[in-house]
Amino acid sequence: MTAPRISQLTIIGVGLIGGSIGQAARQRRLAERVVGVGWRRDSLDRALALGALDDATLDPTAAVRQAEIVVFCTPVDQIVAQVVHLAPLCPPGTLLTDVGSTKGAIVRSLDGRLPTTVDFVGSHPLAGSEKRGPEHAVPHLFEGRLTVITPTEQTRPAAVARTRAFWQALGSRVQLLSPEEHDRALALTSHLPHLVASALASILPPEWAELTASGFRDTTRIASGDPSIWVGIFRQNRDALLDALNRLGLRLDDFREALRADDAVRLDTLLSEAKIVRDALGS
Amino acid sequence: MTAPRISQLTIIGVGLIGGSIGQAARQRRLAERVVGVGWRRDSLDRALALGALDDATLDPTAAVRQAEIVVFCTPVDQIVAQVVHLAPLCPPGTLLTDVGSTKGAIVRSLDGRLPTTVDFVGSHPLAGSEKRGPEHAVPHLFEGRLTVITPTEQTRPAAVARTRAFWQALGSRVQLLSPEEHDRALALTSHLPHLVASALASILPPEWAELTASGFRDTTRIASGDPSIWVGIFRQNRDALLDALNRLGLRLDDFREALRADDAVRLDTLLSEAKIVRDALGS
Repeated sequence: MTAPRISQLTIIGVGLIGGSIGQAARQRRLAERVVGVGWRRDSLDRALALGALDDATLDPTAAVRQAEIVVFCTPVDQIVAQVVHLAPLCPPGTLLTDVGSTKGAIVRSLDGRLPTTVDFVGSHPLAGSEKRGPEHAVPHLFEGRLTVITPTEQTRPAAVARTRAFWQALGSRVQLLSPEEHDRALALTSHLPHLVASALASILPPEWAELTASGFRDTTRIASGDPSIWVGIFRQNRDALLDALNRLGLRLDDFREALRADDAVRLDTLLSEAKIVRDALGS
Repeated sequence: MTAPRISQLTIIGVGLIGGSIGQAARQRRLAERVVGVGWRRDSLDRALALGALDDATLDPTAAVRQAEIVVFCTPVDQIVAQVVHLAPLCPPGTLLTDVGSTKGAIVRSLDGRLPTTVDFVGSHPLAGSEKRGPEHAVPHLFEGRLTVITPTEQTRPAAVARTRAFWQALGSRVQLLSPEEHDRALALTSHLPHLVASALASILPPEWAELTASGFRDTTRIASGDPSIWVGIFRQNRDALLDALNRLGLRLDDFREALRADDAVRLDTLLSEAKIVRDALGS
């Protein structure tokens, strides 16, 4: 690692993602001190016990006063308010970033709204699971995974470079996208699958639960995610998600027509196209 | 195992399922001899090397002449013709069964069409994966899993009991359903998830493949299944699959309306209902 050591890394929200950032930063000796902010003492105590933090506090204002980098790992519908509240309390030069699954609403709301002494750059590490809480954190969560960084026209290049170095130091690869392109892509690659998994899970009659196997379980696994988190994501990325849902609907219509017509060739084509795409992704 | 040892178990089609039956039967010393029938010598050689068979042949007629139990592990659209062809060549008292993912079309086609000296009972072990071939066989595939047996009014109770004992001896639990109820349930628990996974995979633009994470991968994993196998399954269970697709469509409409209305409460309800169902299934 060639980046200079961070004096203090502050993590707002120490769940699966925040806890994993803390564990990775501490194992990699990325920061002199990793400070976590939470809303429940027991959750912070677990994060401390799991090696995710050097110090923990319920007071976010105290936690940012000496921060060099602050990462917001809170639900997407809380990030803007928290950043607006805490940015003025950060020392000059502080880099603020987040891990939210939506970027447009967050990044555009913050553009031009923060003190010029600090920088905010949107990030989204494509890592996580349907699980919650620091007990599911793992220090290798970001290794080999992709983090998308979403600068705007107003983002200073030096801040982008610092954000990139931060995620790379955690083991992640980095890609830059506009907030809008991020949101269009993630609507299809993440938010729509969540919606579909939920729709599929919810139409299962209880008496048929015994008749599910790995196919149903795989396809619906993410429906176990926290509803309140996902309501926020869906609402912040509503337009792109509706577009993605319409695209899926058209393809479901193709299947429906091929089934109605008992068209073996068409069904084979539809399934073969999907197999090519899926095989290319690997396991 | 209290069931008497089977003199010869013949497996028609030695892929993932057939190979796993062979491995389990041999490890559990369930049969004096396990004979596999295939269509390619190299596939049979792999099955022999993997301990799935005592003997292998390309000639199904030779393989059934001394069989006590014959299990058809071939695509659903081939099973009926194979059973009709081979049943008259089996010794009196032979039990024939299958592992097809659809049951109505197979079982109803065979009712009353076989020599009275043998029995056919439909089976469907709810096990497998998107993978193919004997190299993916595992002897524990059926342990703790459910096998559905689908007798009709014409099935002799003694044949049902033998079929049940066979699957239990492989480590499976057993449930009896009518072929039609099996197909209605599996349309929703297996065939619809496959269709949805395929639809989702196929609308992914290649340039966004990098932006997928475990959610997309889980949700679409089964789209890697063999299209020709699944065309047969979809066509044999067309009506029930169309019904299941309509049910899913109604729930997707619920999500679409809630998104359009930006209705946080309704979105939360939809996601929460799904989470309850999915959490109850376990990982």
